[in-house]
Amino acid sequence: MNRRMVIFLLSRILAFEAVLMTPSFIVGLVYGEAGTAALCFLPVIGVLLLLGLFGWKKPKNTAIYAREGFLVVAAAWVLMSVFGAIPFLLSGEFESFWDCLFEIVSGLTTTGASILSSVEQLPHCILFWRSFSHWVGGMGVLVFVLAVMPMSEERSMHLMRAEVPGPTVGKLVPRMRDTAKILYGVYTAMTALLAILLIAGGMPVFDALCNSFGVAGTGGFAIKNAGIAAYNSAYADIVMAVFMLLFGVNFNLYYFILIGKAKDAFKSEELRVYLIMVFSAVLLISISTYDRTVGAFNTFRNALFQVTSLTSSTGYGTVDFANLWPTFAQTILVACMFVGACAGSTGGGFKVSRVMICVKAGAAEIRRLLHPRAVQVVRLEGKPVEGNLIRSTFGYLALYLSIFIASTLLLSLQSGTDFTTNFTAELACLNNIGPGLGKVGPMGNYAFYHPALKMLLSFNMLTGRLELFPMIVLFSPRAWRKNG
Amino acid sequence: MNRRMVIFLLSRILAFEAVLMTPSFIVGLVYGEAGTAALCFLPVIGVLLLLGLFGWKKPKNTAIYAREGFLVVAAAWVLMSVFGAIPFLLSGEFESFWDCLFEIVSGLTTTGASILSSVEQLPHCILFWRSFSHWVGGMGVLVFVLAVMPMSEERSMHLMRAEVPGPTVGKLVPRMRDTAKILYGVYTAMTALLAILLIAGGMPVFDALCNSFGVAGTGGFAIKNAGIAAYNSAYADIVMAVFMLLFGVNFNLYYFILIGKAKDAFKSEELRVYLIMVFSAVLLISISTYDRTVGAFNTFRNALFQVTSLTSSTGYGTVDFANLWPTFAQTILVACMFVGACAGSTGGGFKVSRVMICVKAGAAEIRRLLHPRAVQVVRLEGKPVEGNLIRSTFGYLALYLSIFIASTLLLSLQSGTDFTTNFTAELACLNNIGPGLGKVGPMGNYAFYHPALKMLLSFNMLTGRLELFPMIVLFSPRAWRKNG
Repeated sequence: MNRRMVIFLLSRILAFEAVLMTPSFIVGLVYGEAGTAALCFLPVIGVLLLLGLFGWKKPKNTAIYAREGFLVVAAAWVLMSVFGAIPFLLSGEFESFWDCLFEIVSGLTTTGASILSSVEQLPHCILFWRSFSHWVGGMGVLVFVLAVMPMSEERSMHLMRAEVPGPTVGKLVPRMRDTAKILYGVYTAMTALLAILLIAGGMPVFDALCNSFGVAGTGGFAIKNAGIAAYNSAYADIVMAVFMLLFGVNFNLYYFILIGKAKDAFKSEELRVYLIMVFSAVLLISISTYDRTVGAFNTFRNALFQVTSLTSSTGYGTVDFANLWPTFAQTILVACMFVGACAGSTGGGFKVSRVMICVKAGAAEIRRLLHPRAVQVVRLEGKPVEGNLIRSTFGYLALYLSIFIASTLLLSLQSGTDFTTNFTAELACLNNIGPGLGKVGPMGNYAFYHPALKMLLSFNMLTGRLELFPMIVLFSPRAWRKNG
Repeated sequence: MNRRMVIFLLSRILAFEAVLMTPSFIVGLVYGEAGTAALCFLPVIGVLLLLGLFGWKKPKNTAIYAREGFLVVAAAWVLMSVFGAIPFLLSGEFESFWDCLFEIVSGLTTTGASILSSVEQLPHCILFWRSFSHWVGGMGVLVFVLAVMPMSEERSMHLMRAEVPGPTVGKLVPRMRDTAKILYGVYTAMTALLAILLIAGGMPVFDALCNSFGVAGTGGFAIKNAGIAAYNSAYADIVMAVFMLLFGVNFNLYYFILIGKAKDAFKSEELRVYLIMVFSAVLLISISTYDRTVGAFNTFRNALFQVTSLTSSTGYGTVDFANLWPTFAQTILVACMFVGACAGSTGGGFKVSRVMICVKAGAAEIRRLLHPRAVQVVRLEGKPVEGNLIRSTFGYLALYLSIFIASTLLLSLQSGTDFTTNFTAELACLNNIGPGLGKVGPMGNYAFYHPALKMLLSFNMLTGRLELFPMIVLFSPRAWRKNG
């Protein structure tokens, strides 16, 4: 293993986190919280910049391979979380360091699960850092670092593959760095557009910014105790629902639209399945939750908001679906939570394309049983799927289910919980969604779990965000060996 | 498709069902229920024998292929269920034909889920048919037919593969027919041994027989309202627990022991994982349910009984674990229910060896990511697992999860249910276990589900018993085409 290069990359990323904390500090100054902001952020920014000095000089040997790629990505996320938690701790608003760590991991992984029962008492600078972490984590930190750091193609690919969600990573343009820049450009432009639309609808600027970060990263931290329901605005609900849907789409499609190949973009099989899934869920939930006192429009509005929110793994809520909706509507939500958004989006979950590969490969097995001699090809987006990709997707599924079952089992050690709470808490954390059913519903929180179980959930959030492999590799002693 | 041969085989199987009903009729005579027994069984036996006449003459062309194999097995199980339900209907003890169908499907598939809230009022002949259906379905009807019907090797294999549980079917001896005979011999001998042990412990003969059928087939229909708890006997609990464990083991192992190769039998990797799983579950549940008023021995006895019962997919209960046990113990039971027993046993579930293949293939993917150029071999029982088997196991998993999610969604349409009830009801039926948690716990029943959902659960029980593919093929229009 090339340890020098690993340290170099990690130092650069930590220095970069110092830069990412600066806007929160400035927000503190703007809102007359200079003392709090200086106390919470300046010491951390200082330490991060000092640690960044280790990355001053690029090592001569910059060779890194798949193994280092996974390790760097996993270690970077763990380190960023630990340092990112310190402003929360210094603010004095959290009960323990474990709570702070849970909260920032939830932010960076764009989960949006909170241990706070009330957020309105938090200073603006802390609220901003909490929401901004969604935006930072949404597209991925390393993708950004790639965009600003000169690096060879093969090396970048190793890092990118470990951080970008989905079974495959496609390059939009020949140079990886340019691909990263395009992705961040689209991401920033769409976030800005959403913020402008929300402000135009009458939402305060600070709220519009924080909520836009939450939607863009598919995070879900609210800055009001009542969540998005606090604004009581059909306009804001619909605008946010549309953008939650959009941020769950593969970003490559936006690039295709930008370069005038919109037709190609809409041909995507994954996009079609994603849209069919979302609109079927909205339709079925609208029917099953319809109530004359609420009216047809509001029934549809609530169904659309919760479905786009949970499918895209954002996790904002405008209705207490865990207590008020019928079991059928709840179960549809659980199914949407499991599948998640499209590959290459900021959304979490198992991903639509992975589900498609698994289902199609399952169907091919049935055909193979009926016609043992015929060749069965699994196709996705019109192209045959390689055997290797099918194998690795199923390996992913096996690992996913193993982590899921083991973690649910451990969560059930928490006294006073039931199966539904633990099952959906695990689903909500591993898929980076936020709320679940039972005690972790949209009006509940994760405060009641034992600190050790909060750490387990934090591990799950990181594992889910980095698509399992990097975090598993981080805990594999083999990966740390110098040779091999 | 060779329709003549399909009709010939189905007719033979129906005639065979007439034979299988005869012991229940005789039980009726013995217990002074001649009138009821004659009314319930004689008309059905008559019709079955008449239908059996279609199988009088063997067609000239006896060629059948995989497709016909699946169709025959699936159609045979559906037809046997429909005719097997009629004695229940004629007895007048059931509310509707759908309830009767649910009950016999639950019996034949060795699920043990019941729509009855009380069974003690049933006549002996009906109770016997109900429990005997477990024994019939446990080893598989077609395996028995194979044992008594001369048929070419390749043809038998197509039928056997569709009915015997597990990812692979091994022949013990060169001739398939002899293999089937050996399996049925072991099965009968072990059932008889269990009945003798129970009678020796003071259980009435009728009860001992019915409970032995339930254990041997890993079914779980009780003939007392309080289940096995009614006997209040530590001896019976322990004996039954040991046999539930034994009937969850691959039957090939008993054959190896018979021919003096016991050493080979105990080398089985699947057996070791199965035993480790069961004993870890017993240990953890004992610790988490320990109560001084119950005492250490009874805590262990209860843990052992429920774990062996649910892991082997039998489903007998001596404790109301759905209401009395902590969430942790319940969640361990759910995990055991999911995994199930060994391949080639009478037990249901996903099967230990399939879980092992999935987990090992998942681990191989991680190694492959770390060392992209090294060849990664997945081994089971010391031998490399072929790529085809890994692929078909994962295809099985994909299909399993698809059916699971779709059915849970439909079950949640039932008003007055919660997520835990529907999730575990689906798990208990698809894995042929019987009881779940919530409303379908060991002291509950399935009566409250809408008739359409009872049919869905019946379909799930058959699908689970026949390991997914045959029932799916039955509903695929392509499979019924004459050519192709």
